[in-house]
Amino acid sequence: MPARSEAVSSLDDLRALLDPAAIVTDPQAMAPHLTDWRGKHRGAALALLRPRSVEEVSTILRWASATRTPVVPQGGNTSLSGGATPDASGRAVLLSLARLNRIRTIELEGDTLAAEAGCILADVQQAAAAHDRLFPLSLGSEGSCQIGGVVATNAGGINVIRYGTVRDLVLGLEYVRADGAVIHGLKPLRKDNAGYALKELVIGSEGTLAVVTAATFRLFPRPRASATALCGLASPADALRLLALLRQSAGERISSFELMCDAEMGLTLDLVPGTTLPLDERHAWYVFIELGGSDPNSPLDELLTRVLATALEQGVLRDAAIAQSEAQAKAIWHLRFAVAEANRRAGPIVSHDTSVAVADVPAFIAAIEAMAAERFPEARALFVGHVGDGNIHVVLRLPRQTPAEQLADIGHAVNAEVFAIVSRFGGSITAEHGIGRSLTGMLVRHAQPEALELMRAVKQAFDPLGILNPGAVLAQR
Amino acid sequence: MPARSEAVSSLDDLRALLDPAAIVTDPQAMAPHLTDWRGKHRGAALALLRPRSVEEVSTILRWASATRTPVVPQGGNTSLSGGATPDASGRAVLLSLARLNRIRTIELEGDTLAAEAGCILADVQQAAAAHDRLFPLSLGSEGSCQIGGVVATNAGGINVIRYGTVRDLVLGLEYVRADGAVIHGLKPLRKDNAGYALKELVIGSEGTLAVVTAATFRLFPRPRASATALCGLASPADALRLLALLRQSAGERISSFELMCDAEMGLTLDLVPGTTLPLDERHAWYVFIELGGSDPNSPLDELLTRVLATALEQGVLRDAAIAQSEAQAKAIWHLRFAVAEANRRAGPIVSHDTSVAVADVPAFIAAIEAMAAERFPEARALFVGHVGDGNIHVVLRLPRQTPAEQLADIGHAVNAEVFAIVSRFGGSITAEHGIGRSLTGMLVRHAQPEALELMRAVKQAFDPLGILNPGAVLAQR
Repeated sequence: MPARSEAVSSLDDLRALLDPAAIVTDPQAMAPHLTDWRGKHRGAALALLRPRSVEEVSTILRWASATRTPVVPQGGNTSLSGGATPDASGRAVLLSLARLNRIRTIELEGDTLAAEAGCILADVQQAAAAHDRLFPLSLGSEGSCQIGGVVATNAGGINVIRYGTVRDLVLGLEYVRADGAVIHGLKPLRKDNAGYALKELVIGSEGTLAVVTAATFRLFPRPRASATALCGLASPADALRLLALLRQSAGERISSFELMCDAEMGLTLDLVPGTTLPLDERHAWYVFIELGGSDPNSPLDELLTRVLATALEQGVLRDAAIAQSEAQAKAIWHLRFAVAEANRRAGPIVSHDTSVAVADVPAFIAAIEAMAAERFPEARALFVGHVGDGNIHVVLRLPRQTPAEQLADIGHAVNAEVFAIVSRFGGSITAEHGIGRSLTGMLVRHAQPEALELMRAVKQAFDPLGILNPGAVLAQR
Repeated sequence: MPARSEAVSSLDDLRALLDPAAIVTDPQAMAPHLTDWRGKHRGAALALLRPRSVEEVSTILRWASATRTPVVPQGGNTSLSGGATPDASGRAVLLSLARLNRIRTIELEGDTLAAEAGCILADVQQAAAAHDRLFPLSLGSEGSCQIGGVVATNAGGINVIRYGTVRDLVLGLEYVRADGAVIHGLKPLRKDNAGYALKELVIGSEGTLAVVTAATFRLFPRPRASATALCGLASPADALRLLALLRQSAGERISSFELMCDAEMGLTLDLVPGTTLPLDERHAWYVFIELGGSDPNSPLDELLTRVLATALEQGVLRDAAIAQSEAQAKAIWHLRFAVAEANRRAGPIVSHDTSVAVADVPAFIAAIEAMAAERFPEARALFVGHVGDGNIHVVLRLPRQTPAEQLADIGHAVNAEVFAIVSRFGGSITAEHGIGRSLTGMLVRHAQPEALELMRAVKQAFDPLGILNPGAVLAQR
């Protein structure tokens, strides 16, 4: 095939430009990068490139532009939507940012930290903590996901209700254009209205508009008082009532407010070792609460106890366990974080990352339950997510004995039904995971056509040759 | 002139499409819209269009596209950078959004408010307050600026340190493309990663990419405890030390932290009636502090008193007045807000809206002072701004007797010097006011050329005919 041999010869050109250690073609070494964490996507690549500097990233992109070689950026490879897996053609190069892993600066007077794309999220959290600061981004994959990936996907997680998504944390961005030009924007400016918000556009563009090489983040005071609780409730509507009550007195100190249904809780308790429920009995719904404050003289467990007592009196709450130690708080949060692992072990599932207006969450969940009961009676609908953000992960668990060859069709059918309900509520088909390669068709179906036209025009403006992560976000035509 | 008569005949076409009351050509009625608040820009227009609905805005843009008529959107006409004043050619139409002034929804369960572009900011604040919520955007022109303008310019103000700029407050956006297509995105989604962040790009694009017709904002709990103080300090470095101390115990409850130099304070006390200094003597620098919290049982004046006492002990502070009543708090904030009026009455000034990294503020101010003393010895450098955001308004006050015909040249010379220092610090030439028409040349000089190319490509993608607010943000070529 001529395309292939041309590609190989152009790879030889690249060898002349890069440190040889930066070009990996050994199939065994490449293999883990050619499939995603959940094993849902599988691709091929000409080579795995492992640059060690921004200059090398720039060289790679200049070469890729000259040779029209598709470039698929990859961080910790934890995408849940196939955003970092190349297609099967083998024409693309995989661009791993893992070796750009320095924390460039920590600036305590300005409360900022600049990290390169390959830094592991947990390492950045720890670097901030070592300087008595909080880097609030926290999500299930934090032990392996990388900064470039969290920026490129505008990651969310459990602290969004207070600190926002990655977009709200990024003060400065360094990225490389498709043609190799490096855009230097790391300076931590908290306000900058000089021209268009290019930074905002690159954040969340999943490697399709530019390659993120470093970001400067805002840091926060480490909470010096905190309180953690797990609550049992009767319904999602009660969860919103509880949130409203909590806002009245703990407004700015609510760090997390997460919802989980009992079926998901049961699955987690059954399938993930080391999980226990700190309540006397099971409830239909659970809420995880974390408060944090910077004033050590203003103890938050008292405040939380007061609010939960009121909620109990008002019938909003069935039961609650307030952590009495850091270990108990950790055990509560372990339950929440173990969900991803539980779902992975649960057998065949179809999962979603939907969001709707916060006030619509109860009606949205009810609509999904009704649809699932009618259309997929053998399946079980599970719900877990960030209710304070309106971001509910809808999971349809299929019977273990579902024939493997039927899974793709069932998956499409479930998606179509769930997203039809999302559209009815004016919601988003992906609140935090991104479109990746899994949802490009759904984006075309659910986005307003005139908005999609603007997205295509933006892609054309940033990447006229179409070499950046082709097939992600926007379907290739 | 053929261009003119073509334009008039195309205006006749528009008459057939719009309610006649929406087309104003009376010179006297148009006059106030053809110059900016400070009288620095003056333009001409074919007509002032006053649509009453989104459909009419769409009609106008379809007509403008068909006839290649430039459209200059205008809200409350409070731009400080000429962003809403047409050029002198008289070819453009002025598009006033003032009659789109409904608050469409207030949603208390989700804490959101949707307002049309023509709503006055203060009216939106009051609507939120009437429902026991806070809409935190607060700035000097809040009594007359409009929602469309604050969104189009990503406005900032005195509460950014806690609540962010307009970008951080907007959950949903409705806007009209250059070709008249209405993008419906008002649904208040707190998280949405479905495709590119077009909303973020339109925010702050100053009417050059689309016309904003409505926005959905997040609301916050109204503070049920608050504390206000005016502090006297020796230096900007002490202001940052005070901020660090305050963060340690009042972190998430700091709503404002503003800096002012004594010369600016003196001007305000002299020129604006009803201003008084609540301190026994004058100090070199002042900081305005506002704390707010949602827990009524956690009184913040105690907390503030404690922190300020520590600061006094540590020599970070010279003196402080903590407001003992709401009237005293208002009087303190009146001093801060009166600055714009004081500067307007101060005779000839050259003002700037710069930002640098927070930690760089003291060195930046020192560099400006040194430059001013050397290059403009007759002038006086004044500083006021949002020190917690790194956003300092540098004002050079010229002698009252400076000949009017020299002002433009002096202004350019001052700008060039100030922006050279901004560039040395990697700062922004406009933190919150925007580029408008005043700073397009400076943007070209100070932006990275490769970033500017991307901005031009984005403009081309959104507005291929170049009819939207031409000459603003990007210089016409």
